Amino acid sequence: MTTADPTAATGTGAEAPDACSAHSATGEHGYTKDKDAHLRRLRRIEGQIRGLQRMVDEDVYCIDILTQVSASTKALQSFALRLLEEHLRHCVAHAAQDGGAEMDAKVEEATAAIARLLRT
Amino acid sequence: MTTADPTAATGTGAEAPDACSAHSATGEHGYTKDKDAHLRRLRRIEGQIRGLQRMVDEDVYCIDILTQVSASTKALQSFALRLLEEHLRHCVAHAAQDGGAEMDAKVEEATAAIARLLRT
Amino acid sequence: MTTADPTAATGTGAEAPDACSAHSATGEHGYTKDKDAHLRRLRRIEGQIRGLQRMVDEDVYCIDILTQVSASTKALQSFALRLLEEHLRHCVAHAAQDGGAEMDAKVEEATAAIARLLRT
Amino acid sequence: MTTADPTAATGTGAEAPDACSAHSATGEHGYTKDKDAHLRRLRRIEGQIRGLQRMVDEDVYCIDILTQVSASTKALQSFALRLLEEHLRHCVAHAAQDGGAEMDAKVEEATAAIARLLRT
Repeated sequence: MTTADPTAATGTGAEAPDACSAHSATGEHGYTKDKDAHLRRLRRIEGQIRGLQRMVDEDVYCIDILTQVSASTKALQSFALRLLEEHLRHCVAHAAQDGGAEMDAKVEEATAAIARLLRT
Repeated sequence: MTTADPTAATGTGAEAPDACSAHSATGEHGYTKDKDAHLRRLRRIEGQIRGLQRMVDEDVYCIDILTQVSASTKALQSFALRLLEEHLRHCVAHAAQDGGAEMDAKVEEATAAIARLLRT
Repeated sequence: MTTADPTAATGTGAEAPDACSAHSATGEHGYTKDKDAHLRRLRRIEGQIRGLQRMVDEDVYCIDILTQVSASTKALQSFALRLLEEHLRHCVAHAAQDGGAEMDAKVEEATAAIARLLRT
Repeated sequence: MTTADPTAATGTGAEAPDACSAHSATGEHGYTKDKDAHLRRLRRIEGQIRGLQRMVDEDVYCIDILTQVSASTKALQSFALRLLEEHLRHCVAHAAQDGGAEMDAKVEEATAAIARLLRT
């Protein structure tokens, strides 16, 4: 998808190791530079949910509503996959360079997030 | 979940057999009487999607965003399941009483909708 | 998929109303006549699972194993969808003709089964 | 699927950098050390699939079969999640230490595998 900025990826900056933690001082994560694309996707999904409300309100046929629900769910999962890809590329990779316990924790956390996505 | 209105369920009225078709003259489907509950659910999901936009905008940690995506997907699927249950209770049951080809078509249509939900 | 046997569907026979209950006297359900096709599908899935064991045993690359897991899961879900379609066509339709509480129970039961499939 | 020219994969190091590539000379991947646990899990899943065949053969009630399908699907996904976790921990982490294009390729490959799991 996106290519990692080499300076960010090698973690030479002072704030770099923090950028992927849950408590980032800079508030910058792997997904930060694709923010606009993410917000556009989410606004489109919001539009789909409002579309569903209109469909229910106008008594549209149930099966057609279910088709639209499937489309919205798929769009949410695509969004999740992009976020996850950037997280693996930046945050998990970062932790890998630090190695050890930090890396293990990041991988466990990412796997738990994938498990939650799979369960829904 | 909900109990079928007996007059609707037995299909004695003139418009009853139409009520479940994709081109309902009356615009009334199985879910119509739970409309308010459905709209409330959808508005809550819309709020979750707007919450996701805030999270991205405020550079919240990726994993926390993914957790919220899972919650929204689960909420969408719960909505779909309720709609589907009412559809089976009213529309498929209706078709069953008419029997034959209409019934086969309704079951195939419902199964295809379930398949789409499963694939997402 | 399959077309309902009209005599079974209209429930004129003595054992017909029982055929779809959990405690069928005759041991005959909606899926009974497609038994051979179901067994063939399941044997193919069993072969896929044994293939997975071989892959692990031969140290095949993880990603290739995951691809095979996805294929097996998809095959299991296709099997479930066929079973569900026949269940709706025979058992739920049957209950619809009897109407009332029996029908409600069948629809709730089917919806719960769909929810379990969705959650996995 | 497995063995090929090891120099084609990464070239330099001993067998360690090779261990996670699709063309591992040593046939060793992240999951290799948990092989026994993986094989036990897969044999249990194989037993579940054979159980499904017995259920179909003995005309067990459809809904009970569907419940067993859900259990098998869940078991397959747990297996996939463990494999994926080890893959992230070993192979993706490895690539992260090498950095650059190799890392990007590994993350894209892992994300595509997660997408396939989600779609099923």
